[in-house]
Amino acid sequence: MTAAATPPPRRGRPRDPALDAAVLAATAHLLRERGYQRLRVADVAERAGVGLGALYRRWPGKRELVLAAVADAVPDRAVQTTDDPAGDVLAGLRAIAAALGGPARRLLGSVLPEMEDDPELAAAVRDGVLAAVRRGHRDRLRRLVGDVPDLDVRADVGPAYLLLRTVVLGEDVGDTELRALLHLVTTPDSGA
Amino acid sequence: MTAAATPPPRRGRPRDPALDAAVLAATAHLLRERGYQRLRVADVAERAGVGLGALYRRWPGKRELVLAAVADAVPDRAVQTTDDPAGDVLAGLRAIAAALGGPARRLLGSVLPEMEDDPELAAAVRDGVLAAVRRGHRDRLRRLVGDVPDLDVRADVGPAYLLLRTVVLGEDVGDTELRALLHLVTTPDSGA
Repeated sequence: MTAAATPPPRRGRPRDPALDAAVLAATAHLLRERGYQRLRVADVAERAGVGLGALYRRWPGKRELVLAAVADAVPDRAVQTTDDPAGDVLAGLRAIAAALGGPARRLLGSVLPEMEDDPELAAAVRDGVLAAVRRGHRDRLRRLVGDVPDLDVRADVGPAYLLLRTVVLGEDVGDTELRALLHLVTTPDSGA
Repeated sequence: MTAAATPPPRRGRPRDPALDAAVLAATAHLLRERGYQRLRVADVAERAGVGLGALYRRWPGKRELVLAAVADAVPDRAVQTTDDPAGDVLAGLRAIAAALGGPARRLLGSVLPEMEDDPELAAAVRDGVLAAVRRGHRDRLRRLVGDVPDLDVRADVGPAYLLLRTVVLGEDVGDTELRALLHLVTTPDSGA
C-alpha cells in the first residue's frame, strides 16, 4: 500500500488520547451522515476542533482516517483468554455481535460499497480491520477444536453469520443462536 | 410497503422480455457506475431506449427498478430438486457463490448502505430478494437434516459465509470450502 507524502509519526511522539477520540468521533459522525465519498478531511478537523495540520500529522489522508474510525468501532480485540476455551469463543462471538449491531454496522455499511472502486481502501479494511477480528476469533476457536483441516471455514462461519444477521438483515442475534453457532463450529471433524 | 400512485399492471398485460432485459441491464449498469443515490430513472429509460411512460407502467419507481435488477442478478431459484438432497444443498451453495461472486456482488454492495436510510428499500431487499435465496437454501437443507431446532441458524450459515468471502472479502470460494460448509451444517444435532 502506498501512503500520502508525509508518513505519520507512528509512536514517534506521544498521542493525545482526547484529540484522537474527538477526531475519530467526528469522522464516524460525518461518515454516517454523508457517506465515504462526500466526507472531507477539513470538515472532520473543524467538527473535532483541531487544526488541519495536527490532523494530517496523525493521519496522512482520508482513507487512514476512515480506517481508524472503523477499527475504533470494532473492539473485538478486548476479549480475554481464560481457562474456558468454549466460553472464550462465545464471549468473542458476543463481542463481535455487539460491535456489528452497534457503531460498526453503519460505518462498515458506508465503506463496503467503496471497496470495489478503491482497492487500497479494500485492502486496508480487510487487512487492517477485518483481519484482526477474524484472526482473534480463529485463535480462540483453535484453542477449542485444534488444528482441524477445515479450521479456516469454521472460523469464518461465526463472524459471517453475525455480519449477515446484524449488518445486512438488521436483526438482533440472541444467545440461543450464538450457542447453536458454537455447537456447529465445534462439531467433530469428518476427516473429509 | 407503499407504492407509487399508479400501481403496476402486474401480469395484466403480456410483458415484453426484450424490454425488461434492456431496462434491467441499463439499471444494473448505471447502479454500478453511479450508485443508488445518483441513479435517475430517466437515465435508465434513455440508456435502455424505452419511453419513460412505458418504463413507469412496468416499474412504478426507482426503488422497484433497482430491486428488479438486484433480484435478476440473484438467480438462486433455478436450483433443481433431485433425489440427492446433499447434492441439492451443494448445488444451491454453488449457485449462490456464483451469483454473489458475479453480478450480484456489485449490485448488493451499492444497495446495502442505502438500506439504513431507506427502511422501505431495506424491507424490499430483505423480503423481495434475500428472503427467496434464504428460503430456497433452508428448504433444501431441511430435506437433508429434518426439522432440527437450530435449522434457522444452520440455514443462514452457508449464505452468510458466501456473503463474507465473496462480497466483503472479494475472494473466490472453492469446492473444498463448500463441502466443508456442507459438513458443518449437516452435523448431528446436539439436542441443545
